[in-house]
Amino acid sequence: MAEKILITGFTPFGSEKENPSQMVVEAFDDTFCGVEVVKAILPVSFAKAGKMIVDLIEDVRPDVVICLGQAGGRNEPSIERIAVNLNDSNKADNDGDIPEERVIVSGGASAYFSSLPIKDIVKNIKASGLPATVSNTAGLFVCNHVFYLALHYVSVRGLATKVGFIHLPYLPQQVIDKKGKPYMSLCDMLTVLKVAIGTTINKFYKY
Amino acid sequence: MAEKILITGFTPFGSEKENPSQMVVEAFDDTFCGVEVVKAILPVSFAKAGKMIVDLIEDVRPDVVICLGQAGGRNEPSIERIAVNLNDSNKADNDGDIPEERVIVSGGASAYFSSLPIKDIVKNIKASGLPATVSNTAGLFVCNHVFYLALHYVSVRGLATKVGFIHLPYLPQQVIDKKGKPYMSLCDMLTVLKVAIGTTINKFYKY
Amino acid sequence: MAEKILITGFTPFGSEKENPSQMVVEAFDDTFCGVEVVKAILPVSFAKAGKMIVDLIEDVRPDVVICLGQAGGRNEPSIERIAVNLNDSNKADNDGDIPEERVIVSGGASAYFSSLPIKDIVKNIKASGLPATVSNTAGLFVCNHVFYLALHYVSVRGLATKVGFIHLPYLPQQVIDKKGKPYMSLCDMLTVLKVAIGTTINKFYKY
Amino acid sequence: MAEKILITGFTPFGSEKENPSQMVVEAFDDTFCGVEVVKAILPVSFAKAGKMIVDLIEDVRPDVVICLGQAGGRNEPSIERIAVNLNDSNKADNDGDIPEERVIVSGGASAYFSSLPIKDIVKNIKASGLPATVSNTAGLFVCNHVFYLALHYVSVRGLATKVGFIHLPYLPQQVIDKKGKPYMSLCDMLTVLKVAIGTTINKFYKY
Repeated sequence: MAEKILITGFTPFGSEKENPSQMVVEAFDDTFCGVEVVKAILPVSFAKAGKMIVDLIEDVRPDVVICLGQAGGRNEPSIERIAVNLNDSNKADNDGDIPEERVIVSGGASAYFSSLPIKDIVKNIKASGLPATVSNTAGLFVCNHVFYLALHYVSVRGLATKVGFIHLPYLPQQVIDKKGKPYMSLCDMLTVLKVAIGTTINKFYKY
Repeated sequence: MAEKILITGFTPFGSEKENPSQMVVEAFDDTFCGVEVVKAILPVSFAKAGKMIVDLIEDVRPDVVICLGQAGGRNEPSIERIAVNLNDSNKADNDGDIPEERVIVSGGASAYFSSLPIKDIVKNIKASGLPATVSNTAGLFVCNHVFYLALHYVSVRGLATKVGFIHLPYLPQQVIDKKGKPYMSLCDMLTVLKVAIGTTINKFYKY
Repeated sequence: MAEKILITGFTPFGSEKENPSQMVVEAFDDTFCGVEVVKAILPVSFAKAGKMIVDLIEDVRPDVVICLGQAGGRNEPSIERIAVNLNDSNKADNDGDIPEERVIVSGGASAYFSSLPIKDIVKNIKASGLPATVSNTAGLFVCNHVFYLALHYVSVRGLATKVGFIHLPYLPQQVIDKKGKPYMSLCDMLTVLKVAIGTTINKFYKY
Repeated sequence: MAEKILITGFTPFGSEKENPSQMVVEAFDDTFCGVEVVKAILPVSFAKAGKMIVDLIEDVRPDVVICLGQAGGRNEPSIERIAVNLNDSNKADNDGDIPEERVIVSGGASAYFSSLPIKDIVKNIKASGLPATVSNTAGLFVCNHVFYLALHYVSVRGLATKVGFIHLPYLPQQVIDKKGKPYMSLCDMLTVLKVAIGTTINKFYKY
């Protein structure tokens, strides 16, 4: 039986006023299928977000962690497969940090794989009438940083916690002045998250 | 005072099982802001759809006609500006007709402009938090055919009826196996149509 | 027998340093298949470019006119089908003019069709191993303005001159900092123009 | 002083008749800047291509290995950053093999980073007037398989050989019937490879 799920979103960054991941997390119910849902919003900061996700896992002791982030320009919600031991960006995080090929954990694994059933999640989202895809790169910005550190912590501590990351497209209101950029409604994003959680619990905890 | 609005959608065509324009029309209310909404679903047929739209305008005597169609692959709902006196396609309509540079009305104007306030509609859809764009081509398939014949009829008869056309993206369920193809939720499409009607009535009939 | 062809390009506009249409015209040979090629570069100016194209047709008396322009963001070279009697833009031309739904020729036809064999041109470009498409909108900026006025002049004067317009993608060097924007090499663009001229002469003048 | 470079391409696969990587390799000179260029064309086969690349490195003892592959649908040539220890595909290789989350080297590193100066290569390709990008995923098909095994072999043997992978867009002739799919000319692809080799030799071997 799963008892607790941790879902996280990010604050807006760059020139954006909203972040779909924050809005989805805040709009999500506090329990889902009898499981307690713990929510947190992470800052778009290499210096702070990594420590926060590790502290959250330590404090909350969730059975499942699903971090959400914005992938502006992607057409489908992306269930991420892999987190890479590298920060690299040509744009600043919200602290002004622009990492240049910076290793996240010195001596850490070059990459970790998601422990969510990513293909089943994609299959079930599609069965709900929504598009989705497995993605083989979560980028090298703060999203990948948080994803890597969550998987690294769980691996090093030998925890059974399942950890995954989902990248969301822009919301419709974000693309009003970005002709040609794809978007997804908030309602549909909530469905994506519900299916991701339900599929994961069903596989590992037979609720 | 406007009394009647005619909205039309199309049946599915090609390999599609659904047509967003049909679903939007069927889901729309029967009155909107005190105005009666008359609905019709047109066949994707050069031979039949043109006659149907003309008969509908003649019978219903609407103040406003908004025809809707599917533009699979477009990212934003497109408020069409112009209808052209030509049918041309490399794919068949639902009767198997593949017109090759066929004039719609011999001796008719080469093109007609929409009589909706297309820029105001786009501005107001954006103010509703949704993307939209003016489009300068409705293609040369059955959508443009119906759009041209509606404008031609109104022009030749000297009617005050306002006529426009809106192309809709795919629905989410249509792109599940079309990676990279943009989509819009049905709810958001209904908002698009509401704003288009409201903006038009407000401009010409001061409701 | 065709004796003279007029090809025109445009100067750079907006933030661009180059215009592929200018580079193609300047790099083109002065004779092609025994036909004299007259070249001109038009300013991106509603006030000046229309008068220039009309003066050029009057002075040069070409058998064929092919105007070229940049359509940044399009993937394939576009053989334009139709010119519309309207200027409309949300960006300024090089004189700072931003037309708002301005009719080009008061009382003129709402639209004119290209007199080039547009489908044959696309077919022959593809047979040369390059992509191409017929386009149903040349936009409503200076390109369409010039295209409309050339067709209008030829129509009003009853000339046999064949008139067409080709929109070109960006050159590779223009997209270096525009990730995701398609491009075509200058060499391939020259082939596109050669095939367009050859196909037109072959059809109408049997060279 | 570098003495030998190994460049590899792949045969066509799926419904394609050509593979840009094969054409670039075959069209490349046999020496470049005084360095011998050894060429090989690999089969699109999980079973055979990995063994071939390892045998080639063992036999040729190259200073630099650059493998090339087709990434149909990508707009810019992609200098790959990372190879992942996983084969996964929903399409078959040329032997009919469709791997489902299959580890390449049991107990091997989860990922290896390219040893080419990938950012310098992108910078220098752009300085040559062509677009390019660093990519964070080489997919999980035969390209990634070969890339991973080359890096694994070099790592395990402790060789100084520099290993990288470049994904190429479609050639123009491949997209004639794929409207909207980006493409790059063969000439420009040859420049991309020259710059990649030159930048690598210059950095590590000061030619």
